[in-house]
Amino acid sequence: MAARVGLAIFGFGNMGKIHFKNCMISPRADVRWIVCLNVNDAKSMAESYNLQTKCLSTDEANIDNVLNDKSVKAVIICSPTDTHENLVIKALEADKDVFCEKPITPDFKSTAQCYELAEERHKILLCGFQRRFDPSFSQLHDNLQNKALGNLRLLKISSHDLAPPPLQYIKASGGILSDSTIHDIDMSSWLAGSKPTSIYVQSSAFDKDIAKHDCDLVVVTIMFNNGVISVIDNGRQVSYGYHQKLEVLCDKGVLNVTNRRVDQLEVSSAEQSVIPSIDQHYSTRYTDAYRLILDHFIDVIQGKCEPIITKDHVLQVNKLVEAGKKSQTLKTPVYL
Amino acid sequence: MAARVGLAIFGFGNMGKIHFKNCMISPRADVRWIVCLNVNDAKSMAESYNLQTKCLSTDEANIDNVLNDKSVKAVIICSPTDTHENLVIKALEADKDVFCEKPITPDFKSTAQCYELAEERHKILLCGFQRRFDPSFSQLHDNLQNKALGNLRLLKISSHDLAPPPLQYIKASGGILSDSTIHDIDMSSWLAGSKPTSIYVQSSAFDKDIAKHDCDLVVVTIMFNNGVISVIDNGRQVSYGYHQKLEVLCDKGVLNVTNRRVDQLEVSSAEQSVIPSIDQHYSTRYTDAYRLILDHFIDVIQGKCEPIITKDHVLQVNKLVEAGKKSQTLKTPVYL
Amino acid sequence: MAARVGLAIFGFGNMGKIHFKNCMISPRADVRWIVCLNVNDAKSMAESYNLQTKCLSTDEANIDNVLNDKSVKAVIICSPTDTHENLVIKALEADKDVFCEKPITPDFKSTAQCYELAEERHKILLCGFQRRFDPSFSQLHDNLQNKALGNLRLLKISSHDLAPPPLQYIKASGGILSDSTIHDIDMSSWLAGSKPTSIYVQSSAFDKDIAKHDCDLVVVTIMFNNGVISVIDNGRQVSYGYHQKLEVLCDKGVLNVTNRRVDQLEVSSAEQSVIPSIDQHYSTRYTDAYRLILDHFIDVIQGKCEPIITKDHVLQVNKLVEAGKKSQTLKTPVYL
Amino acid sequence: MAARVGLAIFGFGNMGKIHFKNCMISPRADVRWIVCLNVNDAKSMAESYNLQTKCLSTDEANIDNVLNDKSVKAVIICSPTDTHENLVIKALEADKDVFCEKPITPDFKSTAQCYELAEERHKILLCGFQRRFDPSFSQLHDNLQNKALGNLRLLKISSHDLAPPPLQYIKASGGILSDSTIHDIDMSSWLAGSKPTSIYVQSSAFDKDIAKHDCDLVVVTIMFNNGVISVIDNGRQVSYGYHQKLEVLCDKGVLNVTNRRVDQLEVSSAEQSVIPSIDQHYSTRYTDAYRLILDHFIDVIQGKCEPIITKDHVLQVNKLVEAGKKSQTLKTPVYL
Repeated sequence: MAARVGLAIFGFGNMGKIHFKNCMISPRADVRWIVCLNVNDAKSMAESYNLQTKCLSTDEANIDNVLNDKSVKAVIICSPTDTHENLVIKALEADKDVFCEKPITPDFKSTAQCYELAEERHKILLCGFQRRFDPSFSQLHDNLQNKALGNLRLLKISSHDLAPPPLQYIKASGGILSDSTIHDIDMSSWLAGSKPTSIYVQSSAFDKDIAKHDCDLVVVTIMFNNGVISVIDNGRQVSYGYHQKLEVLCDKGVLNVTNRRVDQLEVSSAEQSVIPSIDQHYSTRYTDAYRLILDHFIDVIQGKCEPIITKDHVLQVNKLVEAGKKSQTLKTPVYL
Repeated sequence: MAARVGLAIFGFGNMGKIHFKNCMISPRADVRWIVCLNVNDAKSMAESYNLQTKCLSTDEANIDNVLNDKSVKAVIICSPTDTHENLVIKALEADKDVFCEKPITPDFKSTAQCYELAEERHKILLCGFQRRFDPSFSQLHDNLQNKALGNLRLLKISSHDLAPPPLQYIKASGGILSDSTIHDIDMSSWLAGSKPTSIYVQSSAFDKDIAKHDCDLVVVTIMFNNGVISVIDNGRQVSYGYHQKLEVLCDKGVLNVTNRRVDQLEVSSAEQSVIPSIDQHYSTRYTDAYRLILDHFIDVIQGKCEPIITKDHVLQVNKLVEAGKKSQTLKTPVYL
Repeated sequence: MAARVGLAIFGFGNMGKIHFKNCMISPRADVRWIVCLNVNDAKSMAESYNLQTKCLSTDEANIDNVLNDKSVKAVIICSPTDTHENLVIKALEADKDVFCEKPITPDFKSTAQCYELAEERHKILLCGFQRRFDPSFSQLHDNLQNKALGNLRLLKISSHDLAPPPLQYIKASGGILSDSTIHDIDMSSWLAGSKPTSIYVQSSAFDKDIAKHDCDLVVVTIMFNNGVISVIDNGRQVSYGYHQKLEVLCDKGVLNVTNRRVDQLEVSSAEQSVIPSIDQHYSTRYTDAYRLILDHFIDVIQGKCEPIITKDHVLQVNKLVEAGKKSQTLKTPVYL
Repeated sequence: MAARVGLAIFGFGNMGKIHFKNCMISPRADVRWIVCLNVNDAKSMAESYNLQTKCLSTDEANIDNVLNDKSVKAVIICSPTDTHENLVIKALEADKDVFCEKPITPDFKSTAQCYELAEERHKILLCGFQRRFDPSFSQLHDNLQNKALGNLRLLKISSHDLAPPPLQYIKASGGILSDSTIHDIDMSSWLAGSKPTSIYVQSSAFDKDIAKHDCDLVVVTIMFNNGVISVIDNGRQVSYGYHQKLEVLCDKGVLNVTNRRVDQLEVSSAEQSVIPSIDQHYSTRYTDAYRLILDHFIDVIQGKCEPIITKDHVLQVNKLVEAGKKSQTLKTPVYL
């Protein structure tokens, strides 16, 4: 099948497994290599599905080997953040198209350099902001674009985890803003339809252990040039599920994305009426989005469309995250 | 019936009519006087229900007459804001218990003086923050008090009108913060269970006519001493109904008050699934709350309980509104 | 106020109190008499609202007195079913318009005679099928009339009490079909838009005490001439609330009336997501309907419209109930 | 991987494709053959996923070849109903475990013979009633089993297609009862927890073309020995989606399975509030159920559990379908 795209996946944590499974059910993707720390995991999964994918550890020599494989047209990078820059550069230099989980790199300057290299090489560099591919969010975006409800006024994004990640993860995360809120800042920038003019971040740390290293709740307000105000609340613990809501007020109505319930059973007794619980984790909440962003990456590789997540956009998100951190320190709004 | 409380109502606009009707269906209230600008309206309503209520215009002599009536034990003040202070003082001096629509007066100092006079006279002064009596909000408050979902972290209050009031009204309103957001600030203070430490107000004016006098969208963030963050979004136009939502995140779960749908009919066709519309106006959304705050006022008059809206609380709300206005001008968070 | 209609209410149980309160808040109704068994109840309620309504016991002499009062233009009959026929006839003979709770009388023949007398006297006889005035049901009816979703195919009506009434009540009720299912049969006939051709009733008795006298669950299927099938399930105990649902399938879509939730608070924790409970009783579920059927009665009295519950319709409902009882005995469909 | 079960799939229509894709994402299934009419379809799908599955046409010689393949441990039969009996017998005689789409065969007697052969050969014969594996339905079943809401009283099952299948299909379908309602009768028997005692079927044909061959709406009531009443409504056209609802009334509460909405976006304007549409087709509504019934089949093959769809149960469903057809003809309840 000439249409199948040869791929290598770097990293085989949560995200690596998600992308691998989506490749497996795509008739257009062919994962030839997995390069990761936990090689046995990868091997046993490949075998269990009867696939020919080869699995290697993350030695530089292995990486070079994989990138020299002519049957590999593109790479998917979902290894730890501090390995991104090196891998992105190597892959681009080896003339591969690149899909990279957010953040491409932790700072504006190096991210800009990666994009410049991609431009030079005429290669794709796609950042994994998958939420935009969620069917509810993408419909909402279309609705805003065609102004079905008039002009946008207020964007409210709410994003909270069931439970905090391990403390070890938090220590290495670079802070909640670049680790987690970055997704909400991406959504906000994507939907606002205008340039941001200021950002203000308020934060609290309720968990005593987290408090030593980071906060676990932020409220971020962003003003846009068109008068639109965006409010993000993002937190590490909400206990009942993976809380993902979006409410958009326009002058002619409201768009609202609710949490997804995992099934359809309601149980009502004299004591109470109980409805189904919501998704517990991003891997189930964004099943469709992860599948669709892979489709999009392959569409772009195959020349069927332009990437919908652009260099300019990713750099703007980086800039907002950096300004947000400054606001957090200075306890004052920061103008851009 | 010894238990009926003789009342006089000052003002017969939207709020006057709501309070009058609730008195009519209460076996404990007896409206003896309505004092208002539109006397004929009041007269014809009283007649149409076969009631003996007498209706007078707002001359000082009439006011004095009514306040001298020994059968009047308490007054309900819902006349224009700029008449509140005079009426509250006169009524307290005539030894009447007083229910007064918000704001008691537009500024902190005169409101404090009204409360001091009430204390001196051992009379009640109850501010009409009716939302607390809404069954959903009051259950939510109880739930927070008994920590059923652990500790509060984030308070989100959303409050938007279907359509802006007349420009004339906006000009005289004293600004959206003291006219409208004050209700949300009351809710926020009531639920947070801690002292506010800072307030930050961002605002936009989308409607060109309103923009000459006021803004029509505010986002207010309040930090509390216990780390709780409260976010309020309050606006003049959302077109599809009277949008009133509240979402409270605790460390063990979430409390959520949704908009109320006006009926129970869903219509699904090949094109779309349509659910009922929401309430259009505060008078229908808060029907129960207005009835229950009147009950509470009478309970307090009859010595059955203490007022749940206290002097300290009302003064804190006033202080927050004033600080909010300062934040709006300075475009920076204001510390309290 | 010339427009107020002088009324007498016969019976002061649940329904009598509901109608009395609705008269109180109507500027067009003036209850001059309450005739009932529990006179003190009625007196104390009238006094507590400061009303001049006079209250009498149910002696024949009292009834005659009230019906001779020229200021009484119409009567509301909500006394026990076995007193209806006598009161309806006396009231019509005294030239009063009559609102009578269902069933007018327990059998077809005497109900027909009541309607014939009303016709002779040119007086109104309105049967209290209040559900049609529920805003959701009446919109659904309009929707079917204008064929917005094409042609009706299937009518599903579900109606269950929280808990069974006292055994004493059940013994005297005449059976669940004429006591309770009659409301659902009314809805079914009203919405089907065609003549019924057969009825089949299946029933079970789960409660051991009820089983000695009646069943506590019926499933009724009615075929209509236009091919429409109607299914009713009606029961005495569902424990979690007053369950009232309606689902109507048309060839171009579905209309659905859900239960009403009593407030707007959702509580979600790690264990469960709890939504508000539903109405517990017909008096709260049909608040609007009871108010609106009184308005309709007064509209008809004042010549503003024709009664929407007609003689022909009420007689058809009676006929269906009688055929249903026959089906229950014969355990076979009964053709009409 | 020793644990992978070698499979052959007979038939490659809607159902064949669904089962094939579920095998592909299961690490325990290995589809070695597809035998079908449309061999090219099958071939191109196998190739596009890089799989070694071989595809053959449905000649008897091919069938024998496949059944002689020792690497094939079990077969999945989803070819046209009239080919089931032959394939089931051949497969069992070749000592394969068999999964067969409903109905095993169209009549009671031959289905019984198939099960007897399976017993003789100590092989599995699993009928494809997938709905039981839907997470909402299976939780509901567990809930009934442990009597969390007391005793069951009423079972209401509603099942309607978006649009009728092609007329050609309807002509060959054997009638709506054995083609479609059979799923609802399965659910009903599964949940009732008692033997059925009678069945009554009422039907209408609204579509003029369908009316020449079959009906397009049935209402089926089944009485069970424990007094439980089950009501099924099943139809060919509801236009707005694939309508699948279940409501179960117990003496201590209600269990309710609602339709599934395809996404989470609500759009509210001055005109209306629109919620997401429901699933359009069984292939999307029952995605999880189809995946889970395959898992169950493999679990049974691997000796991890007994089949939850038994011979006795399938025969009872057959018997009910036959009695239902009789009731349809005789227009009277049929006792079992």
